[in-house]
Amino acid sequence: MDYEVFFNERLLDLRSEGRYRVFADLERARGTFPRAMINSPDGSREVIVWCSNDYLGMGRHPAVVSAMKEAVDAYGAGAGGTRNIAGTNHLHVLLECELAALHGKQAALIFNSGYMSNWATLATLGTHIPGLIIFSDAANHASMIEGIRHSRCECIVWRHNDVCDLNEKLRAADPRAPKLIAFESVYSMDGDIAPIRDICDLAENYGAMTYLDEVHAVGMYGHTGGGIAEREGLSDRLTIIEGTLAKAYGVMGGYIAASAALCDFIRSFASGFIFTTALPPALTAGALASIRHLKKSPFERARLQDRVARLRGLLDRAGIPHIDNPSHIVPIVIGDAAKCKRVSDLLVRDLGIYAQPINYPTVPRRTERLRITPTPLHTDADIEHLVSALATLWSHCALSKAAA
Amino acid sequence: MDYEVFFNERLLDLRSEGRYRVFADLERARGTFPRAMINSPDGSREVIVWCSNDYLGMGRHPAVVSAMKEAVDAYGAGAGGTRNIAGTNHLHVLLECELAALHGKQAALIFNSGYMSNWATLATLGTHIPGLIIFSDAANHASMIEGIRHSRCECIVWRHNDVCDLNEKLRAADPRAPKLIAFESVYSMDGDIAPIRDICDLAENYGAMTYLDEVHAVGMYGHTGGGIAEREGLSDRLTIIEGTLAKAYGVMGGYIAASAALCDFIRSFASGFIFTTALPPALTAGALASIRHLKKSPFERARLQDRVARLRGLLDRAGIPHIDNPSHIVPIVIGDAAKCKRVSDLLVRDLGIYAQPINYPTVPRRTERLRITPTPLHTDADIEHLVSALATLWSHCALSKAAA
Ligand SMILES: Cc1ncc(COP(=O)(O)O)c(C=O)c1O
Ligand SMILES: Cc1ncc(COP(=O)(O)O)c(C=O)c1O
Repeated sequence: MDYEVFFNERLLDLRSEGRYRVFADLERARGTFPRAMINSPDGSREVIVWCSNDYLGMGRHPAVVSAMKEAVDAYGAGAGGTRNIAGTNHLHVLLECELAALHGKQAALIFNSGYMSNWATLATLGTHIPGLIIFSDAANHASMIEGIRHSRCECIVWRHNDVCDLNEKLRAADPRAPKLIAFESVYSMDGDIAPIRDICDLAENYGAMTYLDEVHAVGMYGHTGGGIAEREGLSDRLTIIEGTLAKAYGVMGGYIAASAALCDFIRSFASGFIFTTALPPALTAGALASIRHLKKSPFERARLQDRVARLRGLLDRAGIPHIDNPSHIVPIVIGDAAKCKRVSDLLVRDLGIYAQPINYPTVPRRTERLRITPTPLHTDADIEHLVSALATLWSHCALSKAAA
Repeated sequence: MDYEVFFNERLLDLRSEGRYRVFADLERARGTFPRAMINSPDGSREVIVWCSNDYLGMGRHPAVVSAMKEAVDAYGAGAGGTRNIAGTNHLHVLLECELAALHGKQAALIFNSGYMSNWATLATLGTHIPGLIIFSDAANHASMIEGIRHSRCECIVWRHNDVCDLNEKLRAADPRAPKLIAFESVYSMDGDIAPIRDICDLAENYGAMTYLDEVHAVGMYGHTGGGIAEREGLSDRLTIIEGTLAKAYGVMGGYIAASAALCDFIRSFASGFIFTTALPPALTAGALASIRHLKKSPFERARLQDRVARLRGLLDRAGIPHIDNPSHIVPIVIGDAAKCKRVSDLLVRDLGIYAQPINYPTVPRRTERLRITPTPLHTDADIEHLVSALATLWSHCALSKAAA
């Protein structure tokens, strides 16, 4: 087999489908967030970033930045080893305590990313609990799907956010089998929110554990940033809450919060936790500072919601359809990979707006979209500029103004 | 099922086998590396760390530290998104160029860890190349094993470093099937080195791709730190070279270097690359500085080898058995999980020496060991202190002085 030919052919397939990905080469500037320079073969230009997951702009927050620099000075660059072999530092211990407290759990466990926390935790539970059945929401993130797949345990997919369907599937399963229901709070691409309470009720009825991915909610919802579960007063009904340090908290890393025994079990058996170098002191310190700030400060959360409401209002006035949802994510569906890419290219080139086209496999085919994420630092003028730019393109490109 | 009882029982099993892991809670101090404070219920004390994978002490190198701090100031804390969605920054582009050049390849691709680079790359190749057979060295790292397992492709395990066995297994396989040989250069627990040239010869004969994990070699071997493959002049014969930024380079992150088409293929199809937040600017900048420094400076490499030779000499004189190997890793096999932990505890408590006990599943049962890793910053006095401490314990604990 000619391997190079094989790789090139698969890449050509992507190109012919219009979904070959070109990464935007950005230079974010801390002082001018959400502005950044974008480099391209034609030179570089300044853009306003409208698709970052640094949802609250914490990546530029002075408290986070100084905590990171101080940690580099005090402890050096890397952790120096896996958690078990010379890689645990005291900041890991503090961060795990902070995260446990944030979610009202006995313990927490840090991973190198949210991807890894989902993948490793679900893979480990599915591998080690004999006969475990995982009930997985149909819209779950790739990292959860891969973790479940890796474990080779039985996986039953229920219709997205549909508790009736979940109920039927739970009822049909062997009542003696151990069970886990895996789902997200805020779904990142449509911005809809799971009926967590109803799911917890079902879990209780059927003796199932619950696994909630709050990656797109931690820091942004709840009185102290503990996510949708905190806001709804449901944290204690969830077996495992999973989150990231890389989105609203602005740094990098992932975690689970759960009972002491469960965290200790994952700590002791998860390959993806054991066999990898631990999170560097600078990231741990930055995340700690960010969590602590957002625990006390409601300002960023309130301002984010205000920006989102303002953007939605202006989009409605301009007749630009966007998916209605109760979160901070504003998806504008274009529904065609090539057209979506063209709109995005024009926005950068002519209007200084960066919104990456989102295509398959991140979203289903024919739902290709721009996914707009306002932050507390987008001004009124920024929002008006975005909406008038979209309005211009909408008339030029003859995009449908019908409801999405 | 009572899940808590289940988790607690599994943890009790670990305790009864003597392999329940207690993480050492360290405070590394940049200025006094390889010294650190170790916190325990009985208080904290200073130790000399003898088991770090910050092999060259680059985690404390001024060039790395200032590059990180500058990047935090300039760009902020996190990347702000996945590589495809607002998360690529110009430093990623530069780092990928630097890594490609380091290994003499057309391209490179960064992951969030070496674990992820192994797992995602092997899983993606095994899933997407129809009929691929992966020939995996029996001693391969967990991240490679899990990646292969995840892909569900055919996997044939060959005896560790045994080219005759590999040859037979390649010969017995369908000659038309696409093939990949996956192995490491320096094996981290025994410190032995693969016969890379012979393996490349076999790969050529049988039309197989080669995948070499150089995690414990990059930065430390070869004229510019390109690993054992560079030292032996074999880089161009390997299809894929994989490495980490977290060990000799002292920071965090992983990568592959390969042809442009192969890297683009993995970039386009690997779930573990696509669906996770990109590496923060500070880590990217720190890694770049570290690679660039070690490319030009032979000092750290030479000094490391000198320290290793000195330690081995003194161990021999003291009659303390250690696994002989051609690398910088000095394994001292104790062969019993409980005894190994006791020796390690006594070293910390009485002698100010930290060497984590290494047990199953990191090494096979009955080969539990201390794994000593000297660095350029361990002084003659540090080495003498370590050997005399070990000699004392060896006589007290009646540990075997026979050859390991
Ligand atoms: C729902 C969900 N879970 C997990 C992740 C992974 O988190 P991280 O970026 O920290 O790897 C993401 C996105 O990246 C996500 O959207
Ligand atoms: C051989 C080998 N490959 C890969 C890894 C993973 O690298 P990282 O620590 O960067 O995840 C390790 C150890 O951690 C290793 O020993």
